[in-house]
Amino acid sequence: MDKIHSLTGMLDLYDDGDSNNLSVKIFEVEERIKKIFINYKLSEIRTPALEDTNLFKRATGDTSDIVNKEIYSFNDRNEKSIALRPEGTASVIRAIIEKKLDQSPHKIWYMGPMWRYERPQKGRYRQFYQAGVEILGYEEGPPEFEMISLVCSIIDEFMLEGCCIKINHLGNKISKQAFCDALVKFLEPFKDDLDSKDCERLLKNPLRILDSKNEHTQSILEKAPSIKDFLEPESIELLERIKEQFSDICSIEIDYSLVRGLDYYSGFVFEAISSNLGAQDSFLGGGRYDNLCSKLGGKDLPSIGMAIGIERFASLIEEVTVKNKIISFVTVTSNLEPKTYKIAHQLRTINRDVVLDTHLDSASLKAKLRRANKNNADYAIIIGEEELSSNTAIIKPLKDELKDQQTVSIDELLSFYKAI
Amino acid sequence: MDKIHSLTGMLDLYDDGDSNNLSVKIFEVEERIKKIFINYKLSEIRTPALEDTNLFKRATGDTSDIVNKEIYSFNDRNEKSIALRPEGTASVIRAIIEKKLDQSPHKIWYMGPMWRYERPQKGRYRQFYQAGVEILGYEEGPPEFEMISLVCSIIDEFMLEGCCIKINHLGNKISKQAFCDALVKFLEPFKDDLDSKDCERLLKNPLRILDSKNEHTQSILEKAPSIKDFLEPESIELLERIKEQFSDICSIEIDYSLVRGLDYYSGFVFEAISSNLGAQDSFLGGGRYDNLCSKLGGKDLPSIGMAIGIERFASLIEEVTVKNKIISFVTVTSNLEPKTYKIAHQLRTINRDVVLDTHLDSASLKAKLRRANKNNADYAIIIGEEELSSNTAIIKPLKDELKDQQTVSIDELLSFYKAI
Repeated sequence: MDKIHSLTGMLDLYDDGDSNNLSVKIFEVEERIKKIFINYKLSEIRTPALEDTNLFKRATGDTSDIVNKEIYSFNDRNEKSIALRPEGTASVIRAIIEKKLDQSPHKIWYMGPMWRYERPQKGRYRQFYQAGVEILGYEEGPPEFEMISLVCSIIDEFMLEGCCIKINHLGNKISKQAFCDALVKFLEPFKDDLDSKDCERLLKNPLRILDSKNEHTQSILEKAPSIKDFLEPESIELLERIKEQFSDICSIEIDYSLVRGLDYYSGFVFEAISSNLGAQDSFLGGGRYDNLCSKLGGKDLPSIGMAIGIERFASLIEEVTVKNKIISFVTVTSNLEPKTYKIAHQLRTINRDVVLDTHLDSASLKAKLRRANKNNADYAIIIGEEELSSNTAIIKPLKDELKDQQTVSIDELLSFYKAI
Repeated sequence: MDKIHSLTGMLDLYDDGDSNNLSVKIFEVEERIKKIFINYKLSEIRTPALEDTNLFKRATGDTSDIVNKEIYSFNDRNEKSIALRPEGTASVIRAIIEKKLDQSPHKIWYMGPMWRYERPQKGRYRQFYQAGVEILGYEEGPPEFEMISLVCSIIDEFMLEGCCIKINHLGNKISKQAFCDALVKFLEPFKDDLDSKDCERLLKNPLRILDSKNEHTQSILEKAPSIKDFLEPESIELLERIKEQFSDICSIEIDYSLVRGLDYYSGFVFEAISSNLGAQDSFLGGGRYDNLCSKLGGKDLPSIGMAIGIERFASLIEEVTVKNKIISFVTVTSNLEPKTYKIAHQLRTINRDVVLDTHLDSASLKAKLRRANKNNADYAIIIGEEELSSNTAIIKPLKDELKDQQTVSIDELLSFYKAI
């Protein structure tokens, strides 16, 4: 019969027991990041995978690649355009507005799959995972410190090397406009040298030109005005204070050319990069987006957020070391002897931190012990016909060759297991 | 500006700080179930949300509601029918076949959102969450015990009351066919009394008639033959042994009329129900599906699986008690004083098990302490201008009125925090 294949660009993640496996790393990254989110008193939000396509169009703006090329949209049964979310922030703000919570502050985290419809390439899939944080309802200042503290904690937790946090400020309304005007004025004479994408940006969101991947554009920009010359002193002071406070914890750099890929950012922006990632070196980024909530029909809600690319982050961490002890539960009685499964159940109940690996077939003692070693078990618990009839079990150390195996009563087995 | 609304039947889950909130319960349920999965040495798999619609059509069979009415499908840009997965098993088996892993055994868990396109009603949404387990490559016997042990562990972990595990056996190929023939023979004379759905089942999968919601059909079935009279003695023995072994841990009942809502089940089936759930009382179910892998183009792979409805399960648990201590970090210096954020960062780093709640605005000491009490904090750490200049902090117990607040050095503060 024909096989059915997965869709283009959609990856299966499966932990096949190899500790270097991406699936194991992703699990570890997500669990530990969640713990840090809770440590920062953030609350979880879960929004649906599907939204009205207009939400993302309105939120991310006309010049974002995310809407122009990459959005995974389709028409539903009523010919309405529906999209699989390409990022988390727009949905979070939509939910806060809909629940009429846009007049109070929130500290939020989310985690889950996102989608984009683009040509799949190495490390870029049509379904991918993100974790994010949104701090809503607070003016510039403390939330910026809180956010960079959080980024430092995440980098620190995984002891990532070769990382740097880049920070910048896109100005307040007045200074941002003044800089944009100067940038446009500077670029106008070079208009014919820009590619069509940068020309469009020049009209719609000139700041994004700084982010151009076009080398010729970048060479033109070398002599362009810098946002530094337009920023208010307090914006520069914020950048310098953040750098000063956290630079003994993590490498922090002020980068006046840093702009982020979404149109809705304003004020403080940041990005964490790793020298181990190659050309696309950013694995985390965010910034302030004070205007998004009102743009989506809600109240004025000053906000700052960030998102982490889970796969990219997971690729940065070394082999995951298993902390839990593994015990292999080896029965050599006839398969349907239920009593042994009762013992396995008891063991698992008294110590949930130990991983008890049962063999669910009738292979020989030798074969099962070979598997136990392969699965990196610390001990084997062996129960054969003889042990079963005398209510005993054999505990066999697998990693310490100096220790002998011993026969113990079931009560002794339980005490041993509880104390592992 | 117009507000953008969430799509019909799509729920936002947001933890607004109320411990009785569904979002908090779902998080708790998922974390603790994951821990049990690991305790049973199951490995995680993540399959994409989207699959070729044919996968689900072929897997779940023609008479399943899941394909006939409920599948959330749409045409992609190439007019190919794509579906958001309505359940987890078909995708897991598709992934195992595609990775050419269908000749070896696997013990797998998954967790994530699923979708169905049906009229939304109380407690039934178009996006919902499931956790599942698949034990692949093992013949009947040990995996059945393992699976029921796992179900008992999950019920036990949350100390759910009023639960019962129902088990049944749909027979081997010969006995299942003999029973089906007898059932069809018995029902033929009543054919005109059956509704169109049951008539279709009579043709395509007569076993599923036992699951009919039609009262008249159920009254006809009262005198129908029972599968018990067709089962092999070893099938009945399996049911009785499982009941015997686990009935002191959880209430277990053999129910010979139990069939499951998917066509692919064969052999052992089970369901966990709660008297606290009303008419739709099942929150967990599964069974053996030895033929699915070959049906999807893979090898013969004897398999057993189960799935848990996370929202329904979460609705069963009582209020979630917060185990972590909460400390409110109250600064009353000017907002931009970065030094206090450095202290907050240090505290969070030395003890990730404590939740440190920072106030990110310039409210008064009184207002911040009021919030600390409202957020159920155990202590407040207060740093004002005076403390900042003398390198001290105030520790104020909020729950123990007999204890006085004390001023300590920053070093003492760190020691206190580490030992909480």
